[in-house]
Amino acid sequence: MATLIKNATILTMTEESWMDKGYIVLEDNRIQEVGSGDYTGTQPMEKEIDASGKVAMPGLVNTHGHAAMVLLRGYADDLPLMEWLQTKCWPIEDKMTEEDIYWGTQLAILEMLKTGTTCFTDMYFHMDAVARSVEETGIRAVLSRGMIGFPQKGEQAIAESRAFVKKWNGAANGRIRTLLGPHAPYTCPPDYLKRVVELSEELNVPLQIHLSETSGEVEGCMAEHGCTPIQLMERVDLFQRPTLAAHCVHVTDEDIDIMARYDVRVAHNPDSNLKLGSGVAPAVKMLQKGVTVGLGTDGAASNNNLDMFEEMRQAAMIHKGVGLDPIAVSAFKALQMATVDGARAVFLEEKLGTLQAGAIADLILIDYNRPYYYPRHNLIAHLVYAGQSGDVTDVIIDGKLVVENRKVLTMDEEKIYREVETVCNRLFS
Amino acid sequence: MATLIKNATILTMTEESWMDKGYIVLEDNRIQEVGSGDYTGTQPMEKEIDASGKVAMPGLVNTHGHAAMVLLRGYADDLPLMEWLQTKCWPIEDKMTEEDIYWGTQLAILEMLKTGTTCFTDMYFHMDAVARSVEETGIRAVLSRGMIGFPQKGEQAIAESRAFVKKWNGAANGRIRTLLGPHAPYTCPPDYLKRVVELSEELNVPLQIHLSETSGEVEGCMAEHGCTPIQLMERVDLFQRPTLAAHCVHVTDEDIDIMARYDVRVAHNPDSNLKLGSGVAPAVKMLQKGVTVGLGTDGAASNNNLDMFEEMRQAAMIHKGVGLDPIAVSAFKALQMATVDGARAVFLEEKLGTLQAGAIADLILIDYNRPYYYPRHNLIAHLVYAGQSGDVTDVIIDGKLVVENRKVLTMDEEKIYREVETVCNRLFS
Ligand SMILES: [Zn+2]
Ligand SMILES: [Zn+2]
Repeated sequence: MATLIKNATILTMTEESWMDKGYIVLEDNRIQEVGSGDYTGTQPMEKEIDASGKVAMPGLVNTHGHAAMVLLRGYADDLPLMEWLQTKCWPIEDKMTEEDIYWGTQLAILEMLKTGTTCFTDMYFHMDAVARSVEETGIRAVLSRGMIGFPQKGEQAIAESRAFVKKWNGAANGRIRTLLGPHAPYTCPPDYLKRVVELSEELNVPLQIHLSETSGEVEGCMAEHGCTPIQLMERVDLFQRPTLAAHCVHVTDEDIDIMARYDVRVAHNPDSNLKLGSGVAPAVKMLQKGVTVGLGTDGAASNNNLDMFEEMRQAAMIHKGVGLDPIAVSAFKALQMATVDGARAVFLEEKLGTLQAGAIADLILIDYNRPYYYPRHNLIAHLVYAGQSGDVTDVIIDGKLVVENRKVLTMDEEKIYREVETVCNRLFS
Repeated sequence: MATLIKNATILTMTEESWMDKGYIVLEDNRIQEVGSGDYTGTQPMEKEIDASGKVAMPGLVNTHGHAAMVLLRGYADDLPLMEWLQTKCWPIEDKMTEEDIYWGTQLAILEMLKTGTTCFTDMYFHMDAVARSVEETGIRAVLSRGMIGFPQKGEQAIAESRAFVKKWNGAANGRIRTLLGPHAPYTCPPDYLKRVVELSEELNVPLQIHLSETSGEVEGCMAEHGCTPIQLMERVDLFQRPTLAAHCVHVTDEDIDIMARYDVRVAHNPDSNLKLGSGVAPAVKMLQKGVTVGLGTDGAASNNNLDMFEEMRQAAMIHKGVGLDPIAVSAFKALQMATVDGARAVFLEEKLGTLQAGAIADLILIDYNRPYYYPRHNLIAHLVYAGQSGDVTDVIIDGKLVVENRKVLTMDEEKIYREVETVCNRLFS
């Protein structure tokens, strides 16, 4: 049951270099061998993929998002944050059914697969619909039911989160992993967070949470609790559990020290933070202190796409410009953040993010025959600074070909567009 | 000799709205009619283009760049500015022949045409090769020979600039317009700039110049001349001539007042300014004071592509994030900067940047059938925040179809890649 990918330019992400021509052998859901030149082994191959003129690299890992928010894409832009949330997003989200979430997630996965994302992170509601969508489409995902810790809603979130983890953790041949998803300190009081920490221990799953996204959030936390959101999380023992923290835009040097001490993983969402006017996260300081930083798009309502190529490019650009430092984040570091560091950020470091023998076979092929990839000075710089997600031609996840020559084999594209239109005609009427 | 484009979603850029279905009639190099619904006229059409599922909008105007620098793309990234210039860029540029510039420009034009740019601005050397490339390929351009005002080189630049303007201004059915291109205040002393101003009057052409790109440049100007670069330009009467100023990153409120008073046009290059660690230009203040701001990529060595979709997106994102203001630059303003405002910035405001009767027929078609363009809430937001240049399918310039279904009709793509490889093998040996 082996597959041979041949004649590829290969970026393994195990070192800052690439092979101009090489091959990859896949066996079941693993990479069996990566080599330079032509394959000279004798193993019979079930399938051969000729990747001439293409780059093979690990699939991209999106470490933060709310997939079904694609339903809100372009519905409300260029508005102040609270007006955007209160008058636009929340009233629509209140109306969303499980069926709506299913079709929204289908549209999001269609976009992610076509743009090279092989693993995404989600925090939303009606999560059974999301897990079902992941199972059907062949993508990999790290999922949590979003938890708001106010009376009633809070109890329901704990019950649903427990059931969701028990039902789905490890499902779909291990493609689905689950987390607990307390939304944020300003929506989850300390006592509630302590219960979430206990549940996380009971179920043996990590946590993800939004932390220090805006200056207003930090000011509110200081006023209410006398400390920053990061300090508050330390105080409620949240960081005793493996934690993925989204945003971390307004964090102090002391906050970053705390994050480093507890090995808190960060989902850096540069475009969403720009678009909502939240600011620029001090990712360079985090990296200097050894914090693991992955990249995320956040929901499409604040991005407005799920394009990890754009996040890579922005991560490599924004810190140079805002920090007045042309060497702040290198192209290779941006690629690491989108692959191997992202895998570590979502607690999949054992398996994902590189092309090497033994790794899980999540990889993408990229059409390297576009004007902006010439001359051939530097593959790494080309992919990050000049590339675009539309150049992704093939996607393999868990050893299976999911996208072939830009067509998603597991999905009916036109049907998804029609169903999304039907859903939106009702939601936005 | 009329052409009908039918069944298009049309963004005319004359107002902040679009037609879900409309038609465009082209006659010679002009737009004759733009209408909603089906064309019901009786005029015989030489050609019909069915734009079902596509958006028609004005072609993008790149207001600043150095096209042939694509030869340096990816050659040296993530380096401090002066090391980058002195040890990497300049030694290679010193070796470039007219033939090298020709093939570099061909590669740049290939990329620009495929990504929806219909008019670009250039400041480089061996400009005959650039003009020839523009003439052959069908793109529109505003060209200037870069002028360095030191002894000998300065005299040669004046002589070559005069000859270049006389030979090429208005050539190729008016597709080529020329400017004078004094490089910058730190490479052109005041007396030299005064001579350039005189030459600009003599030849009746505008000027373009790099101004206030880095804080170091402004500090140097203050030390040498006791004023900012903008103030120095006022003092040498440069702004008495129509001027396009590139970058303007480190300008004071007083500088912006001067720019507004003289109607100085600005080429805003957000990605290049980020990548080189130069900073973020105060474009919002410029817009508030009525300054015309277009968008540019700058050369590919500091970008690293010539993708105006990325500049639009960045222009709409960066000022929100850095200014902590989610309404700083709207999606529609970013589109204006890339089209109608850009045309005004390069002194082509009479002709370009909108789709309406009488305008020059420079327009693009965009495949609107991609996941990130659903649901159909807002075409303008989708194009700016979610779109990518790879979705451009067809390009019409000066009434002529230059790109059809992603193929550039006027160029031999594979030959260009081969010639660029040959050029680079010599330049970088
Ligand atoms: Zn979020
Ligand atoms: Zn320049």
